[in-house]
Amino acid sequence: MPSRYLSFRCSVPWLILFLETLFLSHFFFCFPDVGNTYSPSRFYPEFQDVNHLVIFGFGFFLMVLRRYGFSSTGLNFLLVVLGVQCSVLIEDLLVFLRVQQDEGGMRSLAKAVVSVTAVAISTGAVLGKANPVQLIVMSLVELIIFYVSRCINRTFLQVPDNLTLMHVHLFGAYFGVAVTSRFPEPPPGLDKNRSTPKSDLFSMLGTVFVWVFWPSFNSILADSNKEEAVLNTYFALAVSAVAAFMLSALTSKDGKFQMTHIHSAVLAGGVTISYTAHSIQHPWIAMILGLLGSVITILGSHCLQRCFNPAFKHQDTSGVHFTFGLPAVLGAVAAIVLCVVEKGISTQWNNLSSLGYLVFVDLGAFCQTISSALITGLITGLILNTKLLKNVHVSKYFDDQFYWEFPHLSVGF
Amino acid sequence: MPSRYLSFRCSVPWLILFLETLFLSHFFFCFPDVGNTYSPSRFYPEFQDVNHLVIFGFGFFLMVLRRYGFSSTGLNFLLVVLGVQCSVLIEDLLVFLRVQQDEGGMRSLAKAVVSVTAVAISTGAVLGKANPVQLIVMSLVELIIFYVSRCINRTFLQVPDNLTLMHVHLFGAYFGVAVTSRFPEPPPGLDKNRSTPKSDLFSMLGTVFVWVFWPSFNSILADSNKEEAVLNTYFALAVSAVAAFMLSALTSKDGKFQMTHIHSAVLAGGVTISYTAHSIQHPWIAMILGLLGSVITILGSHCLQRCFNPAFKHQDTSGVHFTFGLPAVLGAVAAIVLCVVEKGISTQWNNLSSLGYLVFVDLGAFCQTISSALITGLITGLILNTKLLKNVHVSKYFDDQFYWEFPHLSVGF
Amino acid sequence: MPSRYLSFRCSVPWLILFLETLFLSHFFFCFPDVGNTYSPSRFYPEFQDVNHLVIFGFGFFLMVLRRYGFSSTGLNFLLVVLGVQCSVLIEDLLVFLRVQQDEGGMRSLAKAVVSVTAVAISTGAVLGKANPVQLIVMSLVELIIFYVSRCINRTFLQVPDNLTLMHVHLFGAYFGVAVTSRFPEPPPGLDKNRSTPKSDLFSMLGTVFVWVFWPSFNSILADSNKEEAVLNTYFALAVSAVAAFMLSALTSKDGKFQMTHIHSAVLAGGVTISYTAHSIQHPWIAMILGLLGSVITILGSHCLQRCFNPAFKHQDTSGVHFTFGLPAVLGAVAAIVLCVVEKGISTQWNNLSSLGYLVFVDLGAFCQTISSALITGLITGLILNTKLLKNVHVSKYFDDQFYWEFPHLSVGF
Repeated sequence: MPSRYLSFRCSVPWLILFLETLFLSHFFFCFPDVGNTYSPSRFYPEFQDVNHLVIFGFGFFLMVLRRYGFSSTGLNFLLVVLGVQCSVLIEDLLVFLRVQQDEGGMRSLAKAVVSVTAVAISTGAVLGKANPVQLIVMSLVELIIFYVSRCINRTFLQVPDNLTLMHVHLFGAYFGVAVTSRFPEPPPGLDKNRSTPKSDLFSMLGTVFVWVFWPSFNSILADSNKEEAVLNTYFALAVSAVAAFMLSALTSKDGKFQMTHIHSAVLAGGVTISYTAHSIQHPWIAMILGLLGSVITILGSHCLQRCFNPAFKHQDTSGVHFTFGLPAVLGAVAAIVLCVVEKGISTQWNNLSSLGYLVFVDLGAFCQTISSALITGLITGLILNTKLLKNVHVSKYFDDQFYWEFPHLSVGF
Repeated sequence: MPSRYLSFRCSVPWLILFLETLFLSHFFFCFPDVGNTYSPSRFYPEFQDVNHLVIFGFGFFLMVLRRYGFSSTGLNFLLVVLGVQCSVLIEDLLVFLRVQQDEGGMRSLAKAVVSVTAVAISTGAVLGKANPVQLIVMSLVELIIFYVSRCINRTFLQVPDNLTLMHVHLFGAYFGVAVTSRFPEPPPGLDKNRSTPKSDLFSMLGTVFVWVFWPSFNSILADSNKEEAVLNTYFALAVSAVAAFMLSALTSKDGKFQMTHIHSAVLAGGVTISYTAHSIQHPWIAMILGLLGSVITILGSHCLQRCFNPAFKHQDTSGVHFTFGLPAVLGAVAAIVLCVVEKGISTQWNNLSSLGYLVFVDLGAFCQTISSALITGLITGLILNTKLLKNVHVSKYFDDQFYWEFPHLSVGF
Repeated sequence: MPSRYLSFRCSVPWLILFLETLFLSHFFFCFPDVGNTYSPSRFYPEFQDVNHLVIFGFGFFLMVLRRYGFSSTGLNFLLVVLGVQCSVLIEDLLVFLRVQQDEGGMRSLAKAVVSVTAVAISTGAVLGKANPVQLIVMSLVELIIFYVSRCINRTFLQVPDNLTLMHVHLFGAYFGVAVTSRFPEPPPGLDKNRSTPKSDLFSMLGTVFVWVFWPSFNSILADSNKEEAVLNTYFALAVSAVAAFMLSALTSKDGKFQMTHIHSAVLAGGVTISYTAHSIQHPWIAMILGLLGSVITILGSHCLQRCFNPAFKHQDTSGVHFTFGLPAVLGAVAAIVLCVVEKGISTQWNNLSSLGYLVFVDLGAFCQTISSALITGLITGLILNTKLLKNVHVSKYFDDQFYWEFPHLSVGF
């Protein structure tokens, strides 16, 4: 389909150019007073960790497909750098509109990088199926809606700002799941959506990076309880890594470990604890949460891949639903339970109405986030599959050669 | 051997579950007062470096075998996260027993991660020969004995706490060597215990990581002399890297470099200087130590691989004896010499009896560590090779497919 | 050519030994007073980032050739550790000669690591063509001349010290280009100077590392304006990464992305902004510079590879001319323009003579650096290709097996 392909050639660079011009002009016009854009901060090392996690870690974490290595890292890179600029602009716009107070350049950048994780997660769901134009449109829509959803949580439900940001996994996963459900299924005989030992090894490399830097991710925006956030996240991650190996051996046919289980379940603890890392007062609670996160991920991967996905003809390429979605749901529920128990004990269960209000608010924020992710994800998926944007035939799914030049083909791999 | 293999399936996950339950209940029961578990610390970036070094660096450093990449990284990951939890528990138990004072969560975690390096080193010696059950049992036994050995050094020989921790390379290497000597030799025709250029490249990747983060490893627990520890370690590492290339070209048949030499000898400087990094006052002493470390590693690798190992039918898969063992011995001797010379000069060689006592104490700590490593390593090796735990036939050595599912085999690498 | 090859065997290790002895004796004799060698510093995390960038990042960034992976990482490692020792010595010598004031160990080491980047860049130009002896000689000559050039800039043109260091990209690139022009061309049929998807993936891995750590590189020596340097560099890098994808799709035949464009152009923003990162007051200026850097890199890669290089029979293996050279020229010009505009506005264009002096000084520093790089590079190239040092026949170019033992060949890749 050379004619449709030419339209792709025309659209990608011009879309990027248009966006970049928009960003530049906004940066130029909107923010002439850079009073504290460059205010000092003391969390540069953590910022670098998170930056590394999102660009390098997710880039290689997503490299699970055998013929999609260039696109996994390359397009993740492109989406992250576009998304960060877009997020910084939205942050500045919110400050300009007085919805949010100015927090200085580095903190604003850190929040932008954390927000962009939602895009990296959603990309995992449509990996290999969406072309660059679709991915760019999806990222921008997702980021804008994520900011709107955070504003609602912050303004109407009084959720603290750094907690609204921790909905990033929940939002990213369910947005991605909803978007991918609107893409046509790949033909059953296609073998390009498998992994090879080499791609699994690169993916393991990325996973270890994400694992190591996760404590920085969970603690970067915690103001006072940084230590708690780091230690609880570390313990939760450690237990979920151990549980991942245990459950992988238990659930496989002949007691062997499965690399895909390890990839997804070692991170579950970090996702589960993201809401509560800074407030948990006993390491064993963090460890239990890590264990439960790992359990729900591996059970979820079995249930979803065997029952849910075939029934709904739904394909979630790198399994973001069970890697990030289910643990985030568990984490949100655990946050509510822990908060209620803590408040209940401190008030000796006397003030039940205030407890009910607390549950209502937290549950409201959770439901608002997940429903807006699902609804807008579905709409975005429908828009992405209109004739205007859709130009990848299912037979070309999961293939680098559709997007990248391979001058080395004649030389041989 | 399907029947024996099923026993493996039964044992691995249940062993992990048992341990994890033990850890969790201990965390729950023993430490209800978490007064300063979460006390603030200021060495988070260094902690991240060491964490990265142990999990990522060693995981890929050990990836030298052509068909053992998944297990090298995956099992190293499992052992480290299990070991860290076990170490934190032992640390807390020692605080509980008043053998040691409480130092707060982050510092305790950092010490746990440093201790676990012993396990990562020992794993290198039995790489590809031990199954996961054997590795887990070995790790836990090793960690407990390492803590006992440290307690003896600290209590009876008055060695400062952070110096006892630096015996980690010595202990890990000789424990691993003793354990591996009890494993049956692989058959001579087996070619799976070789490396490929690809596995060597991944191993180089891990080596560079370990190299870069080594200054953090040596300085993380130094209280006052952090700068000295960092700079001396850097200089020692730089000289040993240069010497590694020089000696590799000198000792090979036709003047070419050998990747295995580079892997092991570039790190020798860091191991050699681990005891003295914080106390050396002139960079050139650090550089000489780095040079000697590299020399002893490369000479050791020739002597051990040609004379010692064949004579004793001993196989040390990734060469931890000469990579970590010999430089650590050199470092311990150098620490004694430097300490004596410094004290001797400051007292103008008048107080020979106190010098003799100093030598006696340091030599005692060294001999106690190495002998307890060797003896308990031998016993552990014997236990691991009883019928209860042994289930890998020598023909299945060095093979990922014995432990991991390979759904991609039909697709081809 | 076994006879000539033996001479290589004789020369490499002895050359290294000679240098190492020289370094050691200098460290021993010249600096007996180590008053503030170990003075405390607070930029250890940034130092680690830069160290990682130079050793790991550049090592894997250079891994573009299909059969040159070991040499790319290994020899880069060797040259960096040799170069760092040489740089520290020169720094200390300059302090000894009172040309420069003592700044303490860590800062001196950080400056050494930054200076060595010039060597890593030049290595990219002669990658696969120079043997280790030639590379070592080139590194040492280059470092010495770079220090001389910096001294001239600092002493006669009053350029601040940390700005003279930022000429490192300009110097490294043009020195490398001049050296490589003296090497004989590889025969046209040689296919070893191509990349494979695997080598491109490793190179991408290195590129992402360099990208992530670049803000630390540009900010490590900025004293007061660290925040500005970090944020401006980040924005410039983000825009140049986006522009790299855009321009790569625009300039390729059928709208596909080209990995070589991505490799070189994503870093262009960091190079372009290196002179001005700490002084730019508006993010949009940084973004424009990043965009222009990317444009000049991709246009340059087309022009140079199609017109300039064939005309001059010039081969720049990993394209350092357009990856580092052209953006550095652009950055230097931009620094002059920005400085003039800022001063002009603040003095309301009244004091034109002082503006002219400013332009003269900055332009002088730029011309002095580039011309000394080109002239000494040419001379070095001529020396390296005398009979004494030249021993790689063009048919052996780009081949690991000429320098490394491959015990795995019989086993198969």
